[in-house]
Amino acid sequence: MEQLFIIKIGGNVIDDSLSLNKFLKDFSAMPGKKILVHGGGKIATSIGNRLQIESRYIDGRRITDDDTIDLVTMVYGGLVNKKIVALLQSFGCNAMGVTGADGNLIPAGKRKVADVDYGWVGDIDVDKITPDRWKALIDQGITPVVASLTHDGEGHILNTNADTIAAVLAKSLGHHYETSLIYCFEKRGVLEDVNDENSFLKRLDGKQYELLKNENKLFAGILPKLQNAFDAKQAGVAKVIIGSSDELHLLIKNETGTLIG
Amino acid sequence: MEQLFIIKIGGNVIDDSLSLNKFLKDFSAMPGKKILVHGGGKIATSIGNRLQIESRYIDGRRITDDDTIDLVTMVYGGLVNKKIVALLQSFGCNAMGVTGADGNLIPAGKRKVADVDYGWVGDIDVDKITPDRWKALIDQGITPVVASLTHDGEGHILNTNADTIAAVLAKSLGHHYETSLIYCFEKRGVLEDVNDENSFLKRLDGKQYELLKNENKLFAGILPKLQNAFDAKQAGVAKVIIGSSDELHLLIKNETGTLIG
Repeated sequence: MEQLFIIKIGGNVIDDSLSLNKFLKDFSAMPGKKILVHGGGKIATSIGNRLQIESRYIDGRRITDDDTIDLVTMVYGGLVNKKIVALLQSFGCNAMGVTGADGNLIPAGKRKVADVDYGWVGDIDVDKITPDRWKALIDQGITPVVASLTHDGEGHILNTNADTIAAVLAKSLGHHYETSLIYCFEKRGVLEDVNDENSFLKRLDGKQYELLKNENKLFAGILPKLQNAFDAKQAGVAKVIIGSSDELHLLIKNETGTLIG
Repeated sequence: MEQLFIIKIGGNVIDDSLSLNKFLKDFSAMPGKKILVHGGGKIATSIGNRLQIESRYIDGRRITDDDTIDLVTMVYGGLVNKKIVALLQSFGCNAMGVTGADGNLIPAGKRKVADVDYGWVGDIDVDKITPDRWKALIDQGITPVVASLTHDGEGHILNTNADTIAAVLAKSLGHHYETSLIYCFEKRGVLEDVNDENSFLKRLDGKQYELLKNENKLFAGILPKLQNAFDAKQAGVAKVIIGSSDELHLLIKNETGTLIG
């Protein structure tokens, strides 16, 4: 089967135009088929502040009210997505920006209200994703650039975790391609010692992960990412790697970063 | 040849959520292949005001400076485009939102500075449009929803007239489809008497257009639209019709509105 890379970037790349430029140049230079998934970075917060849209959090999780979904739709789906697409095009990569609403590429549902109403937040309907729609785009030579937004099929855009989108795509497209999922972030990998940037693990299996988690050796921010990473690996994704966005060319060859599983 | 409709809507539809809903329902119900082109409406100005982005005009034309291109990229390419896409998906139309940067669908260049520097404004490189890229999307059953933005191939998004985009697409895709170009706006057609809504002309040919223009009988706002309409007609577009967005189902059958040429 042909290879497909699904690369996810976060705020550390998006917020810094020099890093973004370098990363997108490296991404463009990658041969073969690929998808880029991005969130929004700090720019959503800064534009939200200028628009006097209040950020509300419950237990550290942002609540996506009416104003906030409009804000992230503008910033993730418009400003950030189109900036990335225009830069990739300038580097010779035939990028096409999409959200999950476009072409119904990622059907989702509004998260059910249990104790907390998180607002316009989407949980992906994994079974409703049509891999053939993705394949049709990718096989045309298009590189999808996915903003972390989905839709509910009833006319509403939903704010959706970018790590989860990347993992779901890696799993769903596994029937058509040998998929590799690469999580790029600000560190060189999963660190054994949070104070030592070079202490990244070359490999992290499930057992060791549980051990490190129980010993509170992992920094809190990486836990949801690792959960998505292990889920993807268990669902048959060929390779799952976590590492620095500065080292993309090495990450894709697994010459650096943490290999999961 | 198969038919393709290119429908352009303006601020009167976009700014009013009831009108937008009704229009998009009618648009979804249209059988066959179609493209929707939209601008931004007043919401760009209102969000610009809240962000304290000053609107600068020279001779009535908006100058697109750095802040303004970010604003329209957010609003046209993000908020408005994705709202339309999500609504169309809810009505069963497989919409996909794009700008001219996405898939390099509309290559353009920054308008040359002559007397006035209009800023990040795009003039379309008509000869560089690849109709096959559009056809590949459309023949997959996708309905492209085009925000009025292009790119310069050097990493910059360009603000581009939506009427012109619609006309250029109708012309460029004429090799693959029998294209019809429908300009929807707030009036029932080209009015003979600007004070009488029902005085719309059933047909307007080039000779009569020159006559009405020279007699100053046409309201200024419609002149650029008519210029685009006649250009498209002369370039071989099968049908060019101008009429009200409230009457889309009749317009596409040419049972109302002004037929150009």
